[in-house]
Parts: sequence; structure tokens; C-alpha cells
Amino acid sequence: MNHAATIEAANERVVEKIAAAQPVLVDVVRAGDVIPELEEGKVLLHAGPPITFEEMTGPMQGSCVGAALFEGWADNEEDARALLASEVAYIPCHHVGAVGPMGGITSRSMAVLVVEERSNGNRAFCTMNEGIGKVLRFGAYDDEVVARLHWMADDLGPAIAGALATMPDGLALMPLIARAITMGDEFHQRNIAASALLFTKLAGPIATLDLEPARKERILTFLADTDQFFLNVMMATCKAIMDAARTIEEGSIVTAMTRNGKNFGIRVAGLGDQWFEAPVNTPEGLFFTGFSQDDANPDIGDSAITETYGVGGMAMIAAPGVTRFVGAGGFGDALAVSNEMLEIVHGHNSGLPIPTWDFQGACIGVDVRKVVATGITPLINTGIAHRIAGKGQVGAGTVRAPLACFEQALEALAAKYGVEVD
Amino acid sequence: MNHAATIEAANERVVEKIAAAQPVLVDVVRAGDVIPELEEGKVLLHAGPPITFEEMTGPMQGSCVGAALFEGWADNEEDARALLASEVAYIPCHHVGAVGPMGGITSRSMAVLVVEERSNGNRAFCTMNEGIGKVLRFGAYDDEVVARLHWMADDLGPAIAGALATMPDGLALMPLIARAITMGDEFHQRNIAASALLFTKLAGPIATLDLEPARKERILTFLADTDQFFLNVMMATCKAIMDAARTIEEGSIVTAMTRNGKNFGIRVAGLGDQWFEAPVNTPEGLFFTGFSQDDANPDIGDSAITETYGVGGMAMIAAPGVTRFVGAGGFGDALAVSNEMLEIVHGHNSGLPIPTWDFQGACIGVDVRKVVATGITPLINTGIAHRIAGKGQVGAGTVRAPLACFEQALEALAAKYGVEVD
Repeated sequence: MNHAATIEAANERVVEKIAAAQPVLVDVVRAGDVIPELEEGKVLLHAGPPITFEEMTGPMQGSCVGAALFEGWADNEEDARALLASEVAYIPCHHVGAVGPMGGITSRSMAVLVVEERSNGNRAFCTMNEGIGKVLRFGAYDDEVVARLHWMADDLGPAIAGALATMPDGLALMPLIARAITMGDEFHQRNIAASALLFTKLAGPIATLDLEPARKERILTFLADTDQFFLNVMMATCKAIMDAARTIEEGSIVTAMTRNGKNFGIRVAGLGDQWFEAPVNTPEGLFFTGFSQDDANPDIGDSAITETYGVGGMAMIAAPGVTRFVGAGGFGDALAVSNEMLEIVHGHNSGLPIPTWDFQGACIGVDVRKVVATGITPLINTGIAHRIAGKGQVGAGTVRAPLACFEQALEALAAKYGVEVD
Repeated sequence: MNHAATIEAANERVVEKIAAAQPVLVDVVRAGDVIPELEEGKVLLHAGPPITFEEMTGPMQGSCVGAALFEGWADNEEDARALLASEVAYIPCHHVGAVGPMGGITSRSMAVLVVEERSNGNRAFCTMNEGIGKVLRFGAYDDEVVARLHWMADDLGPAIAGALATMPDGLALMPLIARAITMGDEFHQRNIAASALLFTKLAGPIATLDLEPARKERILTFLADTDQFFLNVMMATCKAIMDAARTIEEGSIVTAMTRNGKNFGIRVAGLGDQWFEAPVNTPEGLFFTGFSQDDANPDIGDSAITETYGVGGMAMIAAPGVTRFVGAGGFGDALAVSNEMLEIVHGHNSGLPIPTWDFQGACIGVDVRKVVATGITPLINTGIAHRIAGKGQVGAGTVRAPLACFEQALEALAAKYGVEVD
């Protein structure tokens, strides 16, 4: 067998793993209880490939301040920043089975969703969506933000865990995802349908928990109103699926795409844990009133794990409503994006037919070889953070993964498999 | 002003009323408490234009048997049928501000949804969706069906009423409808998104009602699982809107389309309460295992009020997922249907942009003149009942309104306005 055939056969196996995945939402727990690295001194998880506190952009540093205040490591910003620059260790979420939105900052006492990939047996973790407005993931860290994190850890998380405990097999996510992709969700910028469907599964069990009415009402109101609640469930789902897929340690399929605000990093099935990095681009799109492109932080967050799986910007055609929100045009533009993305992937995911794509399945398996051959890089739908810590979200748009990551990965594949990689 | 200009100006006013509607879900009550005609002896409401018990097809007669058993007018089918053929009076739902799905049979003790059209001040009523399987609307009438009707009247209805009572202005439906049409619902065959969004509004308030946990759980489980729950809300909504619009007693816009299993009937703004009838067609589509076209009852139900408003089959492009379910092809076919329907309506409803139609608004105002001029009749998405009483639903498909109704209405318009009606 020649090298190209070897890679193609490996890619088939990777893609089969992705398509066969059975992700199940099983629990919400304290992060430190499932990620032991968080208990080894003062440790924070962050989005993207490895980075130091000094190298972080404003919103990620702001999130670190919020996490330090939340954990009680400091009681003001100045002390927090001193401690964050000296005593705290930083680990990429991706290194410990986790993913985090935007800054991705996760500390030991935060509540995390637990998604199990039943076909493979692995688990992945992600913090819960905080809603909109001032939120930690966009770098806000005032009292309101910290208080909400405590409520999520103390009330919201245990309530969802209690609801899940009434389901002996957990909450199967593929049926819900397959339905929501027919309802205008692409799972990165838009999760309205999936969030509502998830709510229909959780509200009954939460309603019958033994909880004070006012606490129950706050929990149900939050879940009913948080349109992007499912984003973080989807991120943990995609992480669990792609971690299962990368147990096939061969081939040219991308198993992670993520950004730390400085660099964009990818991992590839045949290249194991190695990161291939290049400077991130800055998203372009629509800005909230009073903000402009000049305020935009460079691309940030682990949420591009959704595009890695084949949804988000890759599935723009499933969510034509998003194209306007991110300034990407009308129905024809959404169709053009997905058709373009099809050129750089292995094929279609038959488990996720998209009615607006004439029932073709979502994209599956971004192939490093095809990205480099075509020069087409994955399009990512994303929120846009203000570049200054504490200012929060200023818009939403799209951004391209930088080609250089894929070129480096192709060189590494060439070194591993010999020169004939395509 | 010539006659055509008079009609066109009237149509503008009718369409403005439709577009300006502010439907609000305000209550769930006992039918007899809001429809006094139901208390004058033994009375049943039915779908479609007027019909006698003898003329009714199997499923509508079956529904009458179920209603008689539910009301305690008889305790077996034989006695019920004797009474239904002699003592019971029948009124079209449409004559008393109501609409009913399939058989449309509504009796005094059933719970009905109340939708108020705030811009105009009128109200409309519809029974609640019973879910799938053996249900009264498809002509089933066994103990399970009757017991569920009691539970809906005694538990489900009051719980929803209790939830609505916590909302001082009621539950505004246009924002929910406008969102759901971007989520793959066309509101006749598919209401998954709207039902889930409605659930997000009701679950919190229901959870905090003072009710035994087991009763609360049954209510929330039923609402979470009943994907077509919103259909009946939408029917009452469309009825309230079209009744408001027909207060403009001029012009050629259709204000009701409905079927009693024998005839298809339409009403027109400029022609008041008069029904224009023609024999119904029989729907064609996909059948459940073990059933075929031979089992299909002719077209039945008031649910075509959704197409009258401009959704359902008229908005097929909003719900490409439906086209496969009703055997109507792929995305291109859905687009072709909506583009064809555009030829027989006044224009677009700017309040209901459809992303998959490149953000064009849904159809608004079926114009009798355009139907006759083009020979294109409204396409209706519909469930298919077994023609024998008690057998229930056997499939889903599409059906065309018969042209003859529109031709008769055009003649009446010609008589009213003079010969130049187009």
C-alpha cells in the first residue's frame, strides 16, 4: 500500500469513529472532582494551545481575574493579577479532556458538564453557558459575574445533575442534535432549537426535585431564557467525539482546532498531541451599537471544536438565520459557505442530514491535505470579545483558520508517511 | 374608482389587518363557558362548513361518539349513535369563533385554548392537541381516548391556565411564531420548534404551581413530548387573526378554508358569512405501515385555517423537513411549492421572514381572483385519517383545495362588485 492509501484508510477509520459516536450527557460536577490536575496547587485551564499569563489577550486575563476572585484566591483585581502572574499554573483545557468557550478559563470549583462518548468510553468536560451580558467567558469579572458562577456551582449544576440522575442511561445527545440541525441550529452561533429541546428533557425532572420554589423558578427561568445554553453541551460533545476519533492515531483528519487569542492551533489524528500553530486572525462581522472592528479581540476560544466536528461555520447552510446575524449575507451565501467547506472534508455525516442542503449530511473530517491543496481554510462562526479585559462581548462574526497551521501539519505528515501525502 | 381598484383597496386593508395582528394566548377554559351555543341542549361543534350527522364521514362520526361518551350522554357506542342521529344539534366551529382539528368535534365540557387578537379585540377558541396514537380528532373513541379528554379538562387545562395567570399580559404569540418559522416549522404538519418554545414559557410557571408532584410531572411530560401541541394554538391564532381581518367586509381575500370530509368550504372578506363549497379531494402522501391510499378519508378539518393565514403548505419552504414526511420531495420541491403559492396571494407578510426563502416573508392574503385566473389552488399539508370510525391516523400528505369553491366565490364577487372583478 502506498502512503496516500495508508492515510486514506486511516481517515476512513477516523471518520467512522466520528459517525458512530454516541454522546450522552451524564452529569454536572465540580471541575476539580473530574480533572485532578486542577487540585495540584493553583491551576487554571484556558482555551487554545499553551500560553502564559503574560501572553494572554485582555479578555482571557480578565477571565483569570474572575476565576481568582471566584475561588477566593484574592479579593481584588490588583492582588489577583499579581497572583495570576506568579503563583498560578496554566493548562490548556484540551490537555485534560476539557474545552472552554472564549477565554475558556476553568477553575476547580466551577461546575462542568460531563459528556460520555458511549461507543468509545471516554468523557469530556465543559463549563456551563452563563447567558449573555457580563460573563466570565468574555473577560468580565465583577461581583455579578462571580455571584453567578457561585449560583451555577451551588444551584444550577446540582439541579441539572439531579434531573440527569432520574435518567438511568443519561440523556442521549445524537437524537437531539440530529433534530436540532433540521431546526436552524449550526451549534456554534445558534443553539436556540437544541437549547429548547434540551429544556423539554430537563424541565420535568427539575420541576419535581425537592427544592424551594424560588430556587427552582430561577433555575428553570435561566434554562428557558438562555438560547446558547446548548453551545457548551455541544462543545463537550464534540470534544468527546473528537477525542474518541483521535484514538485512531493515523491519518490527516484534524482532531482539534482552537484559539488562545494569540495563536490558532490544530491537532491531527496521525500526529497525536502535537499542536501546529499560527497567529490567529481577527473575526469580522456585525458589532453591537457603539463598537467597531477596532474593538475586536483576535479570535479566541475552544468553541472551534464544533467546526472540527463539522458543524458551526461548516454547517452554515443549516442555519441561514445565522448568516445575517454574523454579516455573512443571505441564503445563497450560506449555501456557498457549506459547499466550499465540502471541498476540504472527507465527506458527509449521514447521521446529520440537513434539509436546507437537500438532505445532504453535515461535513465530516477536515482533511489537512485538502486544506493545503485548495488553500481553503475552515470558516468559523464566533462571538467577538472586546480586546480590553472586563468589557465583554461586542459582536459576532466569522473568521478563517490560518493556512499556516495546516501547512506545518502537512509537512509533519510528510515526514511521518514519506513525501507522498496527497 | 373602478371595481378592480375598489377590491384592491379593500384587499390592502384586509392584509394590513392580518399583518398587524397581535395574537395572545390568554387562557384555557371549559368550552361551554365561552361558547354559549354549546349549553343550549345537546350540541356539538364540527369542522368544516355545515353538515348533518348522516353526511359525516367515518372519523367525524367516531369523534361524535367519543364526545357523547365523554359528556356522559351515553355509555356505549350504540346508544351514542342513536342519540347523535336524533337529539344532537351540530354547529360548525367557524360559526362560533372556534376551529377544530380533523373531525373538529368540540363539546361543552372540553377544555379550549383562548387566543385574543389584541389589535382588534376578538377571541378564538380551539381544543388542545391530544398527542398521537388513539385520539378523538382522528375518530377514535375508546376508554383511553375519553379518559385523556377528562384529564385534559381537569388537569392539563387548569395547569396551563394557572401558568398563563402569572403573565399579566398573557403570552404574546407573534414573537414565538416569528422565531419558529426560522426553525423549520410551517405550523400545520410541523410545530416542533413552536411547541418547544411554548414549553420554555409554560414549564417554569407550571413547575411552581401548588400541585401534587405526580400530576405536575404528567402535565410537563405530556407538554414536553407532544410535538404538535402548538398546532392547536396556531389554529386558534389563525382563526382570531382571520376573524379580525374579515371585519373589513370587502374584497377578494379568503378568510377561511375548511373541510368537513364531504365538502371543502371557503369564506371571502367581501362575501361575509357565506360558504362557497365543493367536494373535497382526498390527500395523497405517505402512509404508516399497513395502510394505503385506499384507507384514506377525504380531506377533513379546520386546520386549513393555517394555510388561510399563509403558513402550512403555503410556507412549505420554511419546513423542508416536512416535504419528505408528506412525500412531497426535497428542498427544491419545497421551494417550488412556496413560489407557486406566491402567485395566488396578495404578497408577503413582512412580520414572518423565512430564512430558507432568502428572508422573504410568508405568503399573506389568498386572493380568489388570482386563484381562478391561474387555476392554482392552495396546497394544504394535512394528516390523513382512516375512512372508518375509530381507526385513527394512517398517514400524512398534501391535498389541493378544489377550484370550484373559488370559481363560485368569484361569481358572487362579480355579482357584488359588477363584472370587472380582476
